[in-house]
Amino acid sequence: MNNFTFHNPTKLVFGKDSILELPKLLPSDAKILLTFGGGSVKRNGVYEAVISQLSGFQTVEFWGIEPNPKVETLRKAIALGKQEGVTFVLAVGGGSVLDASKLIVNAIPSERDAWDLVLHGADRSVQTLPLGTVLTIPATGSEMNRGAVISSEATHEKFGFYNEYPLFSILDPSYTYSLPDYQIACGIADSFIHVIEQYLTRAGESPLMDRWAEGILLTLIEEADKIKAQPADYDARATFMLSATMALNGFISMGVTQDWATHRIGHEITALTGLTHGHTLVIVLPALLREQAGKGKHAKLLQYASRIWGLTEGSEDERITQAIDKTEAFFRSLGLETRLAERGFGDDLREEIVRRFRERGTLLGEDQDIDHEAVAHILARC
Amino acid sequence: MNNFTFHNPTKLVFGKDSILELPKLLPSDAKILLTFGGGSVKRNGVYEAVISQLSGFQTVEFWGIEPNPKVETLRKAIALGKQEGVTFVLAVGGGSVLDASKLIVNAIPSERDAWDLVLHGADRSVQTLPLGTVLTIPATGSEMNRGAVISSEATHEKFGFYNEYPLFSILDPSYTYSLPDYQIACGIADSFIHVIEQYLTRAGESPLMDRWAEGILLTLIEEADKIKAQPADYDARATFMLSATMALNGFISMGVTQDWATHRIGHEITALTGLTHGHTLVIVLPALLREQAGKGKHAKLLQYASRIWGLTEGSEDERITQAIDKTEAFFRSLGLETRLAERGFGDDLREEIVRRFRERGTLLGEDQDIDHEAVAHILARC
Repeated sequence: MNNFTFHNPTKLVFGKDSILELPKLLPSDAKILLTFGGGSVKRNGVYEAVISQLSGFQTVEFWGIEPNPKVETLRKAIALGKQEGVTFVLAVGGGSVLDASKLIVNAIPSERDAWDLVLHGADRSVQTLPLGTVLTIPATGSEMNRGAVISSEATHEKFGFYNEYPLFSILDPSYTYSLPDYQIACGIADSFIHVIEQYLTRAGESPLMDRWAEGILLTLIEEADKIKAQPADYDARATFMLSATMALNGFISMGVTQDWATHRIGHEITALTGLTHGHTLVIVLPALLREQAGKGKHAKLLQYASRIWGLTEGSEDERITQAIDKTEAFFRSLGLETRLAERGFGDDLREEIVRRFRERGTLLGEDQDIDHEAVAHILARC
Repeated sequence: MNNFTFHNPTKLVFGKDSILELPKLLPSDAKILLTFGGGSVKRNGVYEAVISQLSGFQTVEFWGIEPNPKVETLRKAIALGKQEGVTFVLAVGGGSVLDASKLIVNAIPSERDAWDLVLHGADRSVQTLPLGTVLTIPATGSEMNRGAVISSEATHEKFGFYNEYPLFSILDPSYTYSLPDYQIACGIADSFIHVIEQYLTRAGESPLMDRWAEGILLTLIEEADKIKAQPADYDARATFMLSATMALNGFISMGVTQDWATHRIGHEITALTGLTHGHTLVIVLPALLREQAGKGKHAKLLQYASRIWGLTEGSEDERITQAIDKTEAFFRSLGLETRLAERGFGDDLREEIVRRFRERGTLLGEDQDIDHEAVAHILARC
C-alpha cells in the first residue's frame, strides 16, 4: 500500500427534504451569492425549495452557468460577487455549477484573473469564501471533493482546478426524478469511470480499496436497471446518488495508484466538440483498455473480469477481452453510443487531440506510458 | 435508505514513517499534553519517534492510562493539563489512550467532573482542546471517530462518551509489528464486529453500504491468515490497520439502521471482569445471532451467509446456522475462546448483567426487542 493522506471535511446532508437543514448550515450573517445553471431548477421546484429556506439571509443570484462551465461566464459571476461583497456562495445545480463555484469562491477575494487561477493554481494568499452546494445531478462527485474542471471558450481548452472542499452539500434523491434519461445515463457512466480510474491500475495495492471500488461498480450496474424500470424509485435514486458521491471523494483512492488517462483524453473531446463529459468517457475507456490490455493493467483486468462480470473461464486474454466487451455493452445499455463515428466525429478531431498531446509532451496513465502516439492508437479504436 | 448526515473531518496520515508529518500538523505555539498507556511505546521505539518530532514544542507527559480507561486515572491527567495550561493533546497509543484523551480534551477547559461528562454528555459551553493521535493498536476506530468508552472503578460501570473528532491521526502500520498475538486477534475481532453492528440489521436499506461492509469483512478474513503466516508483512498490517479505521468512522453506516446490542452486553462483561473489549464481543455475538436468527435479522443473515461465507445451498435456516458457526469458528481461529465458561465466568456474571439491564430498563438491538429477559437468553448461550 502506498502512503497517503486522507482529509475530506465536507458535511454531507443526505435524504428526502434534507433542504430543510439549509438555514442551520449557513452562517447567520452570510451574504450569499446563489449560483445556478440554465433554469431547470425553476421548473422542477428545487429553486423554490431553496429560496423558501433563505428568508432572513441577504442573497444575490447569478444565472446561466453552462455545462462545461466557461471562464468567460464565470468572470461575470466573480464580478457580481466582488461588487456585492458576498461572504458565502451557495451552488444549486449539477457538477458544472458546483465546479464553477469552486473557482468563483477563490476568485472573488483574489485579484488574479480566473483563467490564471485555472492555469497556475488557486490563490493561496487569500481566504477562499465558504461554499455550500445543493446537488441536482449525480455524476461528477464535485459535491464532496475539491476538484473542478473549467473550460475556456477563447482557447477551446479544458483543465482541472483544485481548491477547498465544499463546507456542506445537500443531496435529496427526489430532486433527480425530473432529469432527462440522457443525463442519468451520463451520470451513471461518469461515476462508473471515476471508479475505474482509481481501481483499474495496479493489482494488490489495497485489498480493501479494491473491494470498495468493486462495491460501487456492482451497485451502479444493479441500480441502472432499477432506475430504467422505475424512474421514481426513491431507493434506487438514493443509491445511485450516494454511489456517485462516493466514486470521487477520496474514499476509494487511499493508498492506491490512479490513472485518469481516460478523463484527460475525454476532456479534449469535450473541449473541441462540446460532447457531455460522461459520454466522452464511455467512448474512450473501452478503446483505452483494449490498447493497454497487454500492459500494466493485465492483472487488475483479470480481477475486474472475475469480480465484476463473473468471468472465470477461458484464457486470461479471453477473459479480459470479454470484460471490456461487457463494459462497452453496459454503456450501450444505458443508451450511450460508444464510438466517435456514431456522433459524427472523424479524423479531424483525432488529429487535433493527438496534436495537442504531442505539443504538450504529456504522458498519461498510471505508468506514464501513454504518449501522443499511444493516444493516436486509442483514438483509432474509438 | 434512511436520511443521514455524514461529517468526518479527521485528517488521516497513513503509512510508513508518517510520523515525520507530525510537526506540520501541530499549531506552532501549541503547549502539548502527551498521553500514554503503560510504557510499551518506550520499548518498541514509538515514543522516541514521536519525541524526535517535537523539538521546539512545549510538552508535558502523562503516563499510565490503562486498558478500559478509568475515570479515576483520567482525573489526574485532567488536573495536570489544567495546571500546565496545555492547549493541545497528543494521544500516543491504542484505543484506550485515544478514548481517554477525547474525555481529557473536553474536561480540561470544563469545570464539570469527568464522570459527570460521561454520564450527562460533553460540556458544549467550553471550547474542547484540539486532539491529535498516533495510533499503535488497530482495533477500536477511535482514531477517526468521535466516540470513546470510559469506565468507573468506583461503580464498575462502562459507558460511551461522544465529543469532537481528532484533528488528525497518524497511522504507521509498522508500529503494530511488536503487538502480542492476543491484541492483534482482539483487534481483528473488534473491527469485524464493528462492521457487523452496522451491517447485520435490516436488509435492503443501502446496497452500497452493504457492499462496503462486506468488503471490510472479507478483507479482515483474508488478512487474518496473512498476518498469522508472516507477522511483519507490511501490506497485511497496513490493510488490517486501514480496515479497522474504516470499520468505525461512519463510512459504512450512511443511511442504514445500526444495532450495537453486542457491544452493550460486551461492555458489561468488561466492566465486571476486565476482559478485553474485543474478546467480550466474540463471546456475545454468536449467541446473540443464534437468539435473534428467526427475527428481524433473518434476511440480512441470509445475505451475510451468501456473500461472506459462500453459503447458498440448504434451507434458509441451515444457511444461517452455518454462517453463525463459521463466524464463531473464525474467531476461534484467531485464538480467542468464544464461551464464558472457557474464561471461568459463570452464573454470577450472567445474573449481575441481567440485573443491570432489568434495573435500567434498557431495550437493545435495531428493533429494540432485546430486553433483560432476551439478554438472559443470549448470555445462557454464551
